[in-house]
Amino acid sequence: MRIRSMMLGAAMALALDAKADEGMWLPSQLPSIAKNLKDAGFRGDPKDLADLTKAPLNAVVRIGGGTGSFVSSDGLVVTNHHVAFGVIQYNTRPDRDLINEGFVAPDRAGELPANPDYRLRVTVGFDKVTDRILADARGKTGRAYYDAVDAASKALVAECEKEPGIRCSVANMFYGRDFYLVRQLELRDIRLVYAPPRAIGNYGDEIDNFVWPRHAGDFTILRAYVGKDGKPADFSPDNVPYHPPSHLKLATEGVAEGDFVMLAGYPGTTYRHRTAAEFADQIEWRLPTSVAVLKGLQEVIEAQGKADKEAGIRYASQLQSLKNNIKRFSGELEGLKRSDAVAVRREDEAAMLVWLATQSDAAALKPSIDQAMALIAQGKDVRDRDLLVGLLTSQTQLMRGALSIDRLSVERLKADAERESGYQKRDEELIQSQLTQIQRRYDPRVEKALVTSVLTRYQRLPDAQRLPEVDKVFGRTPAELTRALDGIYGATTFADEAERTRLFAAAPADVAKSNDALLVAARTLRPALLRIEEEKKAREGDLLRLRPAYMQALIAYREKQGKAVYPDANSTLRVSYGKVTPLAARDAVSYAPLTTVQGIVEKNTGAFPFDAPVPLIDAIHKGDFAGYTDAKTGAMPVDFLSNLDTTGGNSGSPVLNARGELVGLNFDSNWEAVSASWMYDPRYKRAIHVDMRYMRWLMDKVYPSHALLRELGVPAK
Amino acid sequence: MRIRSMMLGAAMALALDAKADEGMWLPSQLPSIAKNLKDAGFRGDPKDLADLTKAPLNAVVRIGGGTGSFVSSDGLVVTNHHVAFGVIQYNTRPDRDLINEGFVAPDRAGELPANPDYRLRVTVGFDKVTDRILADARGKTGRAYYDAVDAASKALVAECEKEPGIRCSVANMFYGRDFYLVRQLELRDIRLVYAPPRAIGNYGDEIDNFVWPRHAGDFTILRAYVGKDGKPADFSPDNVPYHPPSHLKLATEGVAEGDFVMLAGYPGTTYRHRTAAEFADQIEWRLPTSVAVLKGLQEVIEAQGKADKEAGIRYASQLQSLKNNIKRFSGELEGLKRSDAVAVRREDEAAMLVWLATQSDAAALKPSIDQAMALIAQGKDVRDRDLLVGLLTSQTQLMRGALSIDRLSVERLKADAERESGYQKRDEELIQSQLTQIQRRYDPRVEKALVTSVLTRYQRLPDAQRLPEVDKVFGRTPAELTRALDGIYGATTFADEAERTRLFAAAPADVAKSNDALLVAARTLRPALLRIEEEKKAREGDLLRLRPAYMQALIAYREKQGKAVYPDANSTLRVSYGKVTPLAARDAVSYAPLTTVQGIVEKNTGAFPFDAPVPLIDAIHKGDFAGYTDAKTGAMPVDFLSNLDTTGGNSGSPVLNARGELVGLNFDSNWEAVSASWMYDPRYKRAIHVDMRYMRWLMDKVYPSHALLRELGVPAK
Repeated sequence: MRIRSMMLGAAMALALDAKADEGMWLPSQLPSIAKNLKDAGFRGDPKDLADLTKAPLNAVVRIGGGTGSFVSSDGLVVTNHHVAFGVIQYNTRPDRDLINEGFVAPDRAGELPANPDYRLRVTVGFDKVTDRILADARGKTGRAYYDAVDAASKALVAECEKEPGIRCSVANMFYGRDFYLVRQLELRDIRLVYAPPRAIGNYGDEIDNFVWPRHAGDFTILRAYVGKDGKPADFSPDNVPYHPPSHLKLATEGVAEGDFVMLAGYPGTTYRHRTAAEFADQIEWRLPTSVAVLKGLQEVIEAQGKADKEAGIRYASQLQSLKNNIKRFSGELEGLKRSDAVAVRREDEAAMLVWLATQSDAAALKPSIDQAMALIAQGKDVRDRDLLVGLLTSQTQLMRGALSIDRLSVERLKADAERESGYQKRDEELIQSQLTQIQRRYDPRVEKALVTSVLTRYQRLPDAQRLPEVDKVFGRTPAELTRALDGIYGATTFADEAERTRLFAAAPADVAKSNDALLVAARTLRPALLRIEEEKKAREGDLLRLRPAYMQALIAYREKQGKAVYPDANSTLRVSYGKVTPLAARDAVSYAPLTTVQGIVEKNTGAFPFDAPVPLIDAIHKGDFAGYTDAKTGAMPVDFLSNLDTTGGNSGSPVLNARGELVGLNFDSNWEAVSASWMYDPRYKRAIHVDMRYMRWLMDKVYPSHALLRELGVPAK
Repeated sequence: MRIRSMMLGAAMALALDAKADEGMWLPSQLPSIAKNLKDAGFRGDPKDLADLTKAPLNAVVRIGGGTGSFVSSDGLVVTNHHVAFGVIQYNTRPDRDLINEGFVAPDRAGELPANPDYRLRVTVGFDKVTDRILADARGKTGRAYYDAVDAASKALVAECEKEPGIRCSVANMFYGRDFYLVRQLELRDIRLVYAPPRAIGNYGDEIDNFVWPRHAGDFTILRAYVGKDGKPADFSPDNVPYHPPSHLKLATEGVAEGDFVMLAGYPGTTYRHRTAAEFADQIEWRLPTSVAVLKGLQEVIEAQGKADKEAGIRYASQLQSLKNNIKRFSGELEGLKRSDAVAVRREDEAAMLVWLATQSDAAALKPSIDQAMALIAQGKDVRDRDLLVGLLTSQTQLMRGALSIDRLSVERLKADAERESGYQKRDEELIQSQLTQIQRRYDPRVEKALVTSVLTRYQRLPDAQRLPEVDKVFGRTPAELTRALDGIYGATTFADEAERTRLFAAAPADVAKSNDALLVAARTLRPALLRIEEEKKAREGDLLRLRPAYMQALIAYREKQGKAVYPDANSTLRVSYGKVTPLAARDAVSYAPLTTVQGIVEKNTGAFPFDAPVPLIDAIHKGDFAGYTDAKTGAMPVDFLSNLDTTGGNSGSPVLNARGELVGLNFDSNWEAVSASWMYDPRYKRAIHVDMRYMRWLMDKVYPSHALLRELGVPAK
């Protein structure tokens, strides 16, 4: 990266020039960056990491929306407390408060079955299928290209899932350039073995969320079970522990500042290789606009909640979610501005295009790149409209219900496989539960005020962005809008749960005949919503076709710079490497990369969320840390910080040392790194990990389970 | 200090054992600690600092409630922006916004006169007068001892102030052991020469108050003028610059971490040598009780303000003041607990008493020490009552006014010199302005609710603490209290400003005849309030008599430990020394001791209080820092942090380097050091200073005044 302004002193320029430990690498890429890995301190052979279906990477699994790893030959899995929280909650009863008291299984028979829908997936196949996916798409454009890719993917998945116990998916790498078929063995009998109390596992809760220095013991230990035949099975007392093909070894030593670390896991989504125009759109329009619009909705709920406490309670959860989004978007915006991301990406892309013009394949790539850019630029024309119309469904209760009933009545006329995703048979349970929730989450005055807030903005848009159907239902002026909303909400009987239940169960033809004011409105809006959906898919189809040229140019340009390119994250297994790294968060503020139990005591107020359990506080005061302390400082570690490249989905990812031994579990990022899904800024991007020494000490001295420590290969001291 | 618990790791124990740079030394003490000063890095001769009426210490002056120092032979004075804020405000007009725009005098004629009551005092005499003060007191006890000391002090001051332009006071050192007569030349024509905009001088305002890292340019330059005869004079265009007996020299180099620094100024009040019982009283009772009671009042005002916006506005300032006090008390409590101050002081005192028992003068000292301790213990008996009754005056508006009119009518019957302090002729203007303020600060419902909150607590006290007069006026039960308050506030006409004005001007006999409900209540309460006052003075008299024995034992005990003892701060000139020191504020959190202009940009939101002026931001971006940057890092400094021993009153104190040159101005403490008025904890006690390099750079490049820089001996680069 170049130095972007006079503002950056010598030290920062250095940080930017320094080898950034950026990258969520496909395991197959690791041999090609073997020198970088070695230089960074890795002591193994990168070739051994190239196949994610072989040891050690096949020990890294998807679990409960995050990542976990096998740590014993009898199927023990470690992941985060927050990744296993549903399991802990499921097993909590009035007389058995596992959330607040934690859980230590007395023996294997005492391990508690997880909720039946809890899943663990071991990746057993990862094969390139680009040709099969694109065979039928080639030569097509727009919606047809999209549908061809979609149909080929569905067919491959259906074929693949014929094998019992196997779940499959198609992963798109480099935005349509490569496709992989991912085969995963899905285990269904997962049991709770060890969980610390909530006040350890989630010490600090929301206040410490995204915060470093951190003091949470965010880990939980589960065990995977299979049928006696060794095959995946639903829970049964007769099931036996699963013997994973490999498992990770816990390190007996800890980490210190500067140590090499690596991490494997399933990061969700990043946007690092998006075009400069998309960066600008995100930073200059989408984030600030979303913050402004959502703040408007927040103010509506707060004002209404003040006037009417009952209404305030109904909307508490929606308000909380708005606030979280506003905070997250603001943080992302702040971070991207701090990193000067628009300018950095724009100049990088401009340099790439200048270079490309001198290359022999420019003629082959340039037209597609130009088309992709034109298409992205067109997105501006309707982006305000699309954002606002989207909120009509996501931020309303009754209206969302009516729109959903209306759409379902249309989709139900199709064969299940043809239905729009979200309206297939398997989705109906979710739709029904949303219709039920309305009862406790809806207030007509608040909903009218929210719709008014959204549509007042819509009414100010230029005519070119207007949708006749929306104007027809809600009018074109604020006065018409008020009248329309009073009319619809005054007349509808959809607020009655029985009526909603009836309509959900009703035949499509009966729904179509309903003259309920809200359903009529939904029916009137439907063509507009379908048109938006259609336009989006056509655009996505074309981008899927055109972006690979952009990616190819970028990969070639980076190669010329001596750099490899990893595909943006897409929930497939990736490997990052880096080091234990402090954070110079702000002028004169430095954070050390290791926290100690002293910090637990400092933060402890005795009240939630800083209510460390008495046994923990007592053990800290007792100071029996022998065998677990930091070699240099003598302090008892809790969490540590690295510059590893992570994003959502990396929760629970194993953090390994240079010898590939488990030293930590990833569980959060720092606030300054919220923007990392778009740009990895080496000055600020950090990941937060729980130190395995803290986990082992807790299991040895505070809430002991010495049998488990023996099974983990790290006996109590 | 000993290590107090298992909690303190090796590093902290070290910090406690390390030579603490604690001490607010009388200049006359410095030769006796010359070795310590030299060892710390001071390069001058400590003897040169021994006489505060000679150079260089006579350049250090009292000004506007803080400290300043002469920095040119033509009377230029530097102090904090917040110490000179009244002067800046006084000169701000609708067409001349000196607060927001700052001020650079175009030339001497353009320097602006301060508000007429703004004063600068140069200490010209500092003489021990213990014998004269105590001559008449010896042999007396209680109130008589108090009165004798008071009378002797008043006589000395009156005699001293016969000299025109001289203000005198008697300073009590070591709690009654030594008395000094302080003679100060008082200058009355002070003019504003240079002030940065508010957004530089007070960058960050309340949000950054007590915060490190800090980025404020909290300085202002004034000039002292005298009559043509060289004597103090009121403002006149004919006045001439004052030529101070000495002035400080600005350093041309800056400071770095670990550098020796020293500071001279007028710290207000500390309690470091109070007894262990007084420490316990403060930490275990006074601070938590005050926080609880004031929070009760805060809740009252907030609840009333929500119900009635108009009332909320009237009490906004009282609410702010309550919040500030709650925050400060909470911070002090938190800090004293973190330092384990009760245990530390208790064990120190116990060790002293054990040692004393082995000494020859034990017999002479022990009885007085025992008596003092018994007297302090007795304070517990009525402390709750006294605190609550005190709030009846400090936290009410109308009731305070009535109590004040009633008391004034009694005091006015005496000769002015005999009147209670606060009710002398010179105090009447203040009383009158308080009576006027009631108009915009009083609401009957809020006042009744506040009184109810205080007296409900009072009514729960044991009978031994009850005052018959208070019970008579307000009843003994909540129901009686409500009736009484409704009766009084329903009937009084004292809420009428004209009526208050009439009563303020009325003859004492007329006030005594008034049958206004609130005045009758005040008259009924009066004997109780006078009794409390009387008890307090008697107690103070005895403590004044007895504490010197405790201090003598403490000084001897410290001497045995090889340590000198400084008297607790009492607004006399003191000298501290120490070094530029980082702060390990919490687990894994370190603050560097120097901030840079980069931090101004980081904090800048463009909105108050982080609205750095555009010329500053532009100058930072331009980066023309040559000659002002930190030698090692190349960064442009703003503020720096030291472990110097300071307290309120030290605002504006000059910070000097090892050669006695001016490198900074003290302007704040860190939050962790709020408790330092009771205990100096070397781990957390820090002082915050503006770096003279930042001041000089602003005056050179941003809001230039090159003539002034020449006069200061540091010409523009």
